[in-house]
Formats: sequence, structure tokens, C-alpha cells
Amino acid sequence: MPVRPAATSRARVRVIADAAETIRRDSLVTEEPLEVRLELGGGTTPVAVTMRTPGEDFVLAAGPLFSEGIVHDRAEITRIDYCTDVEEQLYNVVTVTANPAETPDLGRLERRGTMSSACGVCGKTTLEAIALRGVPPITSGAAVDVELLYDLPDRLRAAQATFATTGGLHAAGLFTMDGELMSVAEDVGRHNAVDKVIGRALLDGLLPLSEYVLVVSGRAGFEIAQKAAVAGIPVLAAVSAPSSLAVELAEEFGMTLVGFLRGRRCNVYSAPDRIRLPVVR
Amino acid sequence: MPVRPAATSRARVRVIADAAETIRRDSLVTEEPLEVRLELGGGTTPVAVTMRTPGEDFVLAAGPLFSEGIVHDRAEITRIDYCTDVEEQLYNVVTVTANPAETPDLGRLERRGTMSSACGVCGKTTLEAIALRGVPPITSGAAVDVELLYDLPDRLRAAQATFATTGGLHAAGLFTMDGELMSVAEDVGRHNAVDKVIGRALLDGLLPLSEYVLVVSGRAGFEIAQKAAVAGIPVLAAVSAPSSLAVELAEEFGMTLVGFLRGRRCNVYSAPDRIRLPVVR
Repeated sequence: MPVRPAATSRARVRVIADAAETIRRDSLVTEEPLEVRLELGGGTTPVAVTMRTPGEDFVLAAGPLFSEGIVHDRAEITRIDYCTDVEEQLYNVVTVTANPAETPDLGRLERRGTMSSACGVCGKTTLEAIALRGVPPITSGAAVDVELLYDLPDRLRAAQATFATTGGLHAAGLFTMDGELMSVAEDVGRHNAVDKVIGRALLDGLLPLSEYVLVVSGRAGFEIAQKAAVAGIPVLAAVSAPSSLAVELAEEFGMTLVGFLRGRRCNVYSAPDRIRLPVVR
Repeated sequence: MPVRPAATSRARVRVIADAAETIRRDSLVTEEPLEVRLELGGGTTPVAVTMRTPGEDFVLAAGPLFSEGIVHDRAEITRIDYCTDVEEQLYNVVTVTANPAETPDLGRLERRGTMSSACGVCGKTTLEAIALRGVPPITSGAAVDVELLYDLPDRLRAAQATFATTGGLHAAGLFTMDGELMSVAEDVGRHNAVDKVIGRALLDGLLPLSEYVLVVSGRAGFEIAQKAAVAGIPVLAAVSAPSSLAVELAEEFGMTLVGFLRGRRCNVYSAPDRIRLPVVR
């Protein structure tokens, strides 16, 4: 039987403070895909895949069905279960059986882009799905001095044009290993900021980005780590926490993942050799 | 000709500090939908809709096409344009013309749920699309004392089980107008935390939530405001900034939208009558 995932996971973390490093065990927030299937009496249709923190999966499955107008009332939901036909991913697939007063327009969900018409993620594991696309591991020998790394969030913030006036934007910045800012993007959506930086690099003919550090102003979840890995970025540094699946992906692809990059401290979750400490004399 | 949207928008804001309120003009980060269409020589297919901050739309359209494995190289993109056949939404629809070496599997994009096979959003305006679903305006006469409102982020934080150990979670909490915490949810995804709270309310038969305040630990973007409005929530309060489209939606549906709820201050963007100030004696 598969193990039911917990809301937090344990990881081995290299904590760097000033020029000193220590190894400790730390908690990460768990991130795993949840596939929601809808059973309306004539068969089961996958309607959504979301990256989520496990726990309360049944209410997470039910909420969007209401928000998107599929069900309107408690009474229209007759049953919620984990799927039994996908043993390996048992706790990542939920079927909601409903009997709505009106036949819902599932096509509208697709058009909205909030739900997908089918699922290629939960059948295999998420990481396998990326590897299957032929994304190569990151073998770049590039490295960044930790003192320079400490500076990058301030350099990113200084380059943000809109944050100061609205307080409402995520940012992503692409730096050389010498700390030169190559490109910066802001957006209400964290993923969009990364998409803009990678899109700019694509149009400028800079891909793969095997000599760059990507700094993000918020957290590093799976999708951001995935975009960075596909672009060949050797060092991804986030001002806030990474998720469990981002760390797994970084380990799998040999990408250096840095989190909690604040002041003169950071945590390194994978491939630590790309973070250079001062030589002790 | 439509006006090209700017990265920031102006709004009239009621600033409450302690028990005093003032009105001022403020900047909001603009949030609007971007539809990306892909032209591969045999016609144009809508492949993605994302809520984004306008500006750098061409790189935002190009980035995910690389990350998702549709194009692999600069040379495969032959042209990027705003669409000319959708006059009202001219600057919200971008067509990428590409000539990829391998015919891409567009079906995989659908299965991933990151891109949608068609678009019902940009053809009409986003707000019209919700109104068309028959979501009623919020007419609840419920109100909350501002002193109690100031307390809610601390009460939410105190109820978060996982944040303290990981630093990596968004939270949403549903409170009565008397400040009683009815339900709390945490997730790596901000939307998921709100989905869990609304899903719980649905399963508990509490909908519509016309006597409750929803507090979110981060920003209030369009999708969160939309979920709150559909659930009939009269007061949505965010610890960080709202987006322009969240404010427009709140005004349209008569929902009270509070932002930057920190310490003994907050900004009220719409329907301010539900925030009660102390009576001056």
C-alpha cells in the first residue's frame, strides 16, 4: 500500500551563515499533484490537476467544483473517495461523485484553463514525466561566491520598477555568476515572472542558461524549479521556502537549489558544490 | 483603438489607521488575462490563458512554449504579434508563429493543465464571463469592527499548524463577524488554501458564506476574489496587495475588499460600509 503523504517532509539542508556551513535536518512543506476526477453517473472524467500540500484532499477537490459552478450545493455531492485503480498514486487521485441539478458544462472548465480535460501527470510520477521529455541533467561547472549570492536579492529589488509603487509583484532576475543582472521581470504571478525571464532569454538566443543564477523573490515550488531545469539553469535561489517536490526535482536534475536567501544566510538543498565559500587561510 | 494596458493602475483607496480614515489615490498592480495562440502553418490554436501584469507580453508568450517543449530554439519562432481580429482585447491576445523541427504534442499541454485547448475568457471580458454565469451581487448587511479586523491576521497565524515548521505555506481563514475562526487551511498554493476553506464550507452546508470574513495570508488576485464572490463572502481581507482586476471584481459584485491588513492599518478598496469604525464621542 502506498504511504499517505504528510503535510511536511524532512530534508537534509546545508545552512550557510556568513562564511560558515552546517548540515541539519529541516522540514519542508510537501508539494504533490492532486488529480480530481468527476463521476456524474456516466463514467469518470478527470477535471483538474493541482500541485498541493496533502491533507484535506476531499475539501480541496470539492471547493473548485463549487467555485466553477459544477455543483451548487452539498446535496449534489453524493460521495468523495480516493481512487482505488491507481495504486501507486492512491492518495493523489480523488473522485467526486456528484448528481448536479443541471448537467455541467465541462467544456467551460477546459476553456477557462483552470481544469484540464485529461491527466498525464498522476498516472506516472511527476518527475518521471519531465525526464521522459528528454530534459537533460544539469552538468554545468559554473559556481557563485556565497558573498555575491547574498547580494543578489538586493540587486533584484533595486531593479524592480513597479514593486515600490504597488507592493504587489513577484520578481525574477537572471544574473551572471559575477552578479551582473542580465534580465529582470515582474508580474502578479510568480510563474509569469520566471516565464518572462526565460522567454526573453529564448528570444535573445541565450538558451540553455548554463552560466546563470535565477533569483526569485518568493518561494520555489515545483513549477518554478521545473522551468529553471528545462532552461538548464545551474543555480536557482529563492528568497523564501522551497517545496519538497522542488527539492526532489533539483536533486534529480543536479540543479543547485538555494532557499531562504536573506541577509547573510541561505539554505542549500541540492548540488552544493556550485556555492563557493571563502577559503579559510 | 483599445488603450494599451499599463503595468500599474490608479485606484481610490480608503486608508484606515487606528480609528481614523482618509481617502487617497493609490497605485495597484494591473492584472489582466493574456491569451496565447500558436500558429504552426495550418491555422491558429489557442494554447494558454494566464492572468498577468501587462508588459513584456511577447516574452511571456514565448517562455512557456519553451518550458513546455513546444519550441526548442529561437530560430523556431518566426513571428510574434498582438492579434488584430479581437479589437476590444487587442493587447490581451498574442499569436506566436512557429516552425518547430518536431510537430509538438499540443494534447500534452492540455493534459498538463497548464494550457487550455480553447479560450472563453478573452473573447468576452473576464468580469462579464462571471456575471454571465449568474453569480449574484453580494448584498449582505453584515459588518465587522475595524478593531476586530486588525486582530484577524494574528489569529490566522496562530491557527496555522505547518507554517512555523516550514515557513512555506499560504493560509486562508474563515471568521465570523465576531472574530471566531470557523476554518483554516494551509497549502503551498494560495488558491488551494482558499479552495479548501470553500470546499469545507460546501461539505458542511454553510454556503453561501454571507456572514463571514475570509482572510488570506498573501495577496488578493483576481482568482481569489472570484472564488470569494462566488461563495457570497461579503468581506475579503488580504495581508498584502490586491490586483487591479480583484478590485474591479469586488466593486462589480459589491464585495468589501481589504488589502495590506497589517498591524493597526488597512486599505479598503470597495464597499467600505462593512468596515465599522469606532463612534467618536
